[in-house]
Amino acid sequence: MTDHAAVKAALTRQAIETPSWAYGNSGTRFKVFAQPGVPRTTREKLDDAATVHQLTGAAPTVALHIPWDKVDDYTALAKYAEERGLRLGAINANVFQDDDYKLGSVTNPDPGVRRKALAHLLDCVDIMDATGSRDLKLWFSDGTNYPGQDDIRARQDRLAEALHAVYDRLGDDQRMVLEYKLFEPAFYTTDVPDWGTSYAHCLKLGDKARVCVDTGHHAPGTNIEFIVAFLLRENRLGAFDFNSRFYADDDLMVGAADPFQLFRIMYEVRRGGGFDDGSDIAFMLDQCHNIEAKIPAIIRSVMNVQEATAKALLVDRDALAAAQRSGDVLEANAVLMDAYNTDVRPLLAEVREEQGIAPDPVAAYRASGRQERIVAERVGGEQAGWGA
Amino acid sequence: MTDHAAVKAALTRQAIETPSWAYGNSGTRFKVFAQPGVPRTTREKLDDAATVHQLTGAAPTVALHIPWDKVDDYTALAKYAEERGLRLGAINANVFQDDDYKLGSVTNPDPGVRRKALAHLLDCVDIMDATGSRDLKLWFSDGTNYPGQDDIRARQDRLAEALHAVYDRLGDDQRMVLEYKLFEPAFYTTDVPDWGTSYAHCLKLGDKARVCVDTGHHAPGTNIEFIVAFLLRENRLGAFDFNSRFYADDDLMVGAADPFQLFRIMYEVRRGGGFDDGSDIAFMLDQCHNIEAKIPAIIRSVMNVQEATAKALLVDRDALAAAQRSGDVLEANAVLMDAYNTDVRPLLAEVREEQGIAPDPVAAYRASGRQERIVAERVGGEQAGWGA
Amino acid sequence: MTDHAAVKAALTRQAIETPSWAYGNSGTRFKVFAQPGVPRTTREKLDDAATVHQLTGAAPTVALHIPWDKVDDYTALAKYAEERGLRLGAINANVFQDDDYKLGSVTNPDPGVRRKALAHLLDCVDIMDATGSRDLKLWFSDGTNYPGQDDIRARQDRLAEALHAVYDRLGDDQRMVLEYKLFEPAFYTTDVPDWGTSYAHCLKLGDKARVCVDTGHHAPGTNIEFIVAFLLRENRLGAFDFNSRFYADDDLMVGAADPFQLFRIMYEVRRGGGFDDGSDIAFMLDQCHNIEAKIPAIIRSVMNVQEATAKALLVDRDALAAAQRSGDVLEANAVLMDAYNTDVRPLLAEVREEQGIAPDPVAAYRASGRQERIVAERVGGEQAGWGA
Amino acid sequence: MTDHAAVKAALTRQAIETPSWAYGNSGTRFKVFAQPGVPRTTREKLDDAATVHQLTGAAPTVALHIPWDKVDDYTALAKYAEERGLRLGAINANVFQDDDYKLGSVTNPDPGVRRKALAHLLDCVDIMDATGSRDLKLWFSDGTNYPGQDDIRARQDRLAEALHAVYDRLGDDQRMVLEYKLFEPAFYTTDVPDWGTSYAHCLKLGDKARVCVDTGHHAPGTNIEFIVAFLLRENRLGAFDFNSRFYADDDLMVGAADPFQLFRIMYEVRRGGGFDDGSDIAFMLDQCHNIEAKIPAIIRSVMNVQEATAKALLVDRDALAAAQRSGDVLEANAVLMDAYNTDVRPLLAEVREEQGIAPDPVAAYRASGRQERIVAERVGGEQAGWGA
Repeated sequence: MTDHAAVKAALTRQAIETPSWAYGNSGTRFKVFAQPGVPRTTREKLDDAATVHQLTGAAPTVALHIPWDKVDDYTALAKYAEERGLRLGAINANVFQDDDYKLGSVTNPDPGVRRKALAHLLDCVDIMDATGSRDLKLWFSDGTNYPGQDDIRARQDRLAEALHAVYDRLGDDQRMVLEYKLFEPAFYTTDVPDWGTSYAHCLKLGDKARVCVDTGHHAPGTNIEFIVAFLLRENRLGAFDFNSRFYADDDLMVGAADPFQLFRIMYEVRRGGGFDDGSDIAFMLDQCHNIEAKIPAIIRSVMNVQEATAKALLVDRDALAAAQRSGDVLEANAVLMDAYNTDVRPLLAEVREEQGIAPDPVAAYRASGRQERIVAERVGGEQAGWGA
Repeated sequence: MTDHAAVKAALTRQAIETPSWAYGNSGTRFKVFAQPGVPRTTREKLDDAATVHQLTGAAPTVALHIPWDKVDDYTALAKYAEERGLRLGAINANVFQDDDYKLGSVTNPDPGVRRKALAHLLDCVDIMDATGSRDLKLWFSDGTNYPGQDDIRARQDRLAEALHAVYDRLGDDQRMVLEYKLFEPAFYTTDVPDWGTSYAHCLKLGDKARVCVDTGHHAPGTNIEFIVAFLLRENRLGAFDFNSRFYADDDLMVGAADPFQLFRIMYEVRRGGGFDDGSDIAFMLDQCHNIEAKIPAIIRSVMNVQEATAKALLVDRDALAAAQRSGDVLEANAVLMDAYNTDVRPLLAEVREEQGIAPDPVAAYRASGRQERIVAERVGGEQAGWGA
Repeated sequence: MTDHAAVKAALTRQAIETPSWAYGNSGTRFKVFAQPGVPRTTREKLDDAATVHQLTGAAPTVALHIPWDKVDDYTALAKYAEERGLRLGAINANVFQDDDYKLGSVTNPDPGVRRKALAHLLDCVDIMDATGSRDLKLWFSDGTNYPGQDDIRARQDRLAEALHAVYDRLGDDQRMVLEYKLFEPAFYTTDVPDWGTSYAHCLKLGDKARVCVDTGHHAPGTNIEFIVAFLLRENRLGAFDFNSRFYADDDLMVGAADPFQLFRIMYEVRRGGGFDDGSDIAFMLDQCHNIEAKIPAIIRSVMNVQEATAKALLVDRDALAAAQRSGDVLEANAVLMDAYNTDVRPLLAEVREEQGIAPDPVAAYRASGRQERIVAERVGGEQAGWGA
Repeated sequence: MTDHAAVKAALTRQAIETPSWAYGNSGTRFKVFAQPGVPRTTREKLDDAATVHQLTGAAPTVALHIPWDKVDDYTALAKYAEERGLRLGAINANVFQDDDYKLGSVTNPDPGVRRKALAHLLDCVDIMDATGSRDLKLWFSDGTNYPGQDDIRARQDRLAEALHAVYDRLGDDQRMVLEYKLFEPAFYTTDVPDWGTSYAHCLKLGDKARVCVDTGHHAPGTNIEFIVAFLLRENRLGAFDFNSRFYADDDLMVGAADPFQLFRIMYEVRRGGGFDDGSDIAFMLDQCHNIEAKIPAIIRSVMNVQEATAKALLVDRDALAAAQRSGDVLEANAVLMDAYNTDVRPLLAEVREEQGIAPDPVAAYRASGRQERIVAERVGGEQAGWGA
């Protein structure tokens, strides 16, 4: 039996961080398609994020990307966010968009480039001090394209050195979450290609270092929920970067490609205590809305995470445990599927109404006229986008 | 027994087309790294291609990409090439870099966009008339990112309609080669995702429509040499786009990721008559030299194709056939591997010397001082690159 | 707007063929786990299939595998089936479990083996004459394990020859459905590895040759619904072999690994007319219940197909077409997802009750005491299984 | 500059363990093809292994699989081996071929089954005491086929408990090497699916626990040499199980599918000190010769490992380091490829002749008449094979 009130409480409590860059233009190597009404400044991105939070009640924080969101005064930016009902979330370091980083950042064979990259990472911790952010999110595009190009092992030494320097700089309430990715933009080796590599580095760093699971960064066939369960058992799961993919790192809306996988992941989060009060796992989106309208896509993504969470919370764990104990494969599977097959949209509508917001956030956005307003207002200037 | 003279004759005859865009800058969605000395105009690209041909003796033609290589006078451009010992090769249509193509080009739900795309394709045939090019290479980025986004079947209808219109415009000595690709930039469906789709359309169009096999465009685990063998048996293999990959469409130098696969492909080309005198298969490179120096990378790529070809030509087909007939699995495999394990670099050095060129084209390029010269000369202006 | 009555009519009409071998033991190369109560004869398999049909109302036919289901009198077998409310379905030829087939069956380099294999295929058509089966299902394990082992192209010649001989033997109302599979048991090449190969052979054979799509036989990342849509457009989709997989050809219960994919496939079936009255597509299960109880697993599989079908039928095609036409990516996706997110179990319970059967077939099976009965009765003799 | 004498010394020193089961019959779930002359007892397997070692000089130890190689007196078996110039190598525990293990062995929800599995593992250590084997190789087929079937996290708890019990039983000079595998025979989760899981368990166990890298057990696209380099840096690489694959765990002859990958792996072994005198890495074959003759296939496999090793040893590390330091991508790659493209067969023939053995072991085997002899002699009895 599931406790309906507890399910609703957990759903009400759930917070999903949206990324500032998802509000701007993005694309593939072939083309970035511009969209009307896209923010031109970080403050406009925060305005959009505030809209998402107002309509969903579930997106109270916004992740920044430095230097894309570089501003003169981060304290002022944090205040701007606060006035809109938001807080600033994870600081994402960017050490991949400078010509110096052609052969790597912290793992570059050139010590000068490594110093430059490290300095940027430390700057990001300074920014965290100003914004009050808890998490420094590290993703390194570092790797090689050709066999022999660089020494795989020496690059690990360099990586470890940089991570230690950053770790030592963290404050008591700050954390480092280390992302891994199979490939892209590096096409032969990536210096943090899988959860094992991230985990091994985190272990050596200490308790404030955690693994970040980006749902689009795995080899085909990887069982992501296994990794989630394993890291939760080890108390090393720091954050999710949610998105979905059919092939590689497609960065589609979370839940769009394989909603059943998202549900299974969320069930393991629940199983490992990740929805419990006091859990410190960060649930973040990291997506590229290349062809779809950005704000409604982000709203939809937040809703997809909520729906998968609701289904995970509805799993009858007692019945499941009984079937598992008795070795009844079909019954155990059926208990899980019963929750997945439930239409949780009415439940979430109810949760929203109890929070005083519209039951259908996408429809509310469409009805609000806001899209037309920003299209009309945001004319001139340079649209935000990857690299801007 | 292999006929040494025949092997050398085939190697001397081999022509590998280099793509104009490989001489310019390229990158991933994360960053395009600029390189010094990169061409600023199509003529400068042809200058570089001429260098590659002079040093290898094996790269007499250059593929163009329209509009990246748009010029006012294509006849003059062909003459410019000819003066440098080159001919203009395949015309590559580009219907993916315009804002109108966000939801597709020839398969776009909007008939106006479809008309625009088709007009561009027909323009490309006009250019072929001027350049004397035989092949129109068609790659469509068309597809969808989300389930439901568009009607899969209707898009095939639209595709077929456009292909027929272009086919009907081809001259007697012109061909259409239709490329397929699993994914990217479309992330849910691609309108020509596999060889079967390309083949089926070509069958309906007629003999001048052929399949183009890009070695980086397959699902993991696909046996490319099977496809090559199959298409040769059907007389529908039109062209190769060579490159290599570890993961997705990495566009690394051909032969860099899996030289044994390249050899197996080349053996099937030989088996199917593709190296015979009079064969009409186009051997083209289609690569992105994101971090390595472009001209020597292209030279190396040409050499990699030559080495794989040499090994394929050295396979003792009589011994192979005998082992295959007798069901001797290990012996048949050993015959093939014997050729692969042979160091063919001395043989190719010999072939080059007989052609009056340096035995080691990369060393010759390094010694020529040309790289330093173009770095010094090509200052100012805008470097060529994807989208330029 | 969807027409509720039409949806229910289509669901009532739907027929899913169950395979005789799924009722017997199966396993992996590591172990076949025996289960109590498993049939020892083809007639006992039919008894189990009759149970499935009684409880679901949707599984009226049973596919046979020759020689696993070899009997002396097929006419008597058909009568036995009929008395239990069943018909005999597709005849599955087996040319992979004899020592002679180590290097292939119809593509074997040894003409004697090829003759033996062809004779078996022709025998299967004789059996079809006796059973009244419409479809001959051909899956060839043929292929090679090592590069060079055999001539890829010559094997296609041999395959084509055998297929023609079988095709010529088919009666007017009989069909051949040709399955493809990426790999296993052959590990380097497979002679019919993909839909394109199957399609190309079918084209040359004639209208009675159709492609069989086994949902577990593709390379990672393959978009199966695209293939379904394409083959329906070409009128070459003959049959489905349903099952599901996370990795390779796992042969799990259909819908268990990726229910959203199954829904997308079913939507394309609907889009292409495959659920229309008079459609001749065969919907078959082809699964291995290695560790779960067989009869309830098959019941569950039938229900999973029904649920995916129901969702596909609920898609509001007018709203979808409107969103697609207007290029509204998010709305088009939302229309599709709205149907997918609907809980169709009440609808299917209703359909069953209108047919006079229990709303929950799995519960009905559990309550029936039949499992205990067959466990008690089927003692002694040899259990049916792969190879038996 | 490479030191020729040092290369030859390393090659002379290299020892490759062959697995007893590779001498017996094996197959896929579809069919096990029997071969004439296959051993009927473990002693006959050792006879064959002795032949391989005599002809290659490089295969001095043989891995056993319990219970396939269960004998009454392991000390006598070790003596039998010694008399033939062999030693007994790793003991491979088998907890997957008993009906009790349908839902797992050490991770089974049933504590009785877990106890049984653990008892077998402890028995294997007893056998190690008798045979003088250093390594206990653990591969668990444990996992689940369906979402929900069992609790992912609880299974880790059970696994950890069993591993600790076995670890505590190891003698001072004994080790445990823990294999990982993505999938098969479990099709949803595997309890040790990747190197990270194995590594994390080994870390907690202690220094005598090491990771075993089976080259066929990874997700598509996984960079195996990265894992090798990483584990060597952590001093946690215990052993290799060599084989090759195009798709899944195909268990083909090592080096047959991707010889370049094998070379890259071997280069990282060299880079990490794994060929140094005193290195404790075990180089083992783990293959299935389903259709090819077994003894010559094993000889070929040993030679393939030797050739990849020779090429790895020929890499000019000074030149490589210089190119890497200077960021010369093409030159660094060229240095590596220069070694790979070298034909090392003459070098290995030389090494063999210096050891007093024939330069071509396969030819020597064919000429020896041994195959004909064992075919004639080994008649009657039951052939060894998987499960026997």
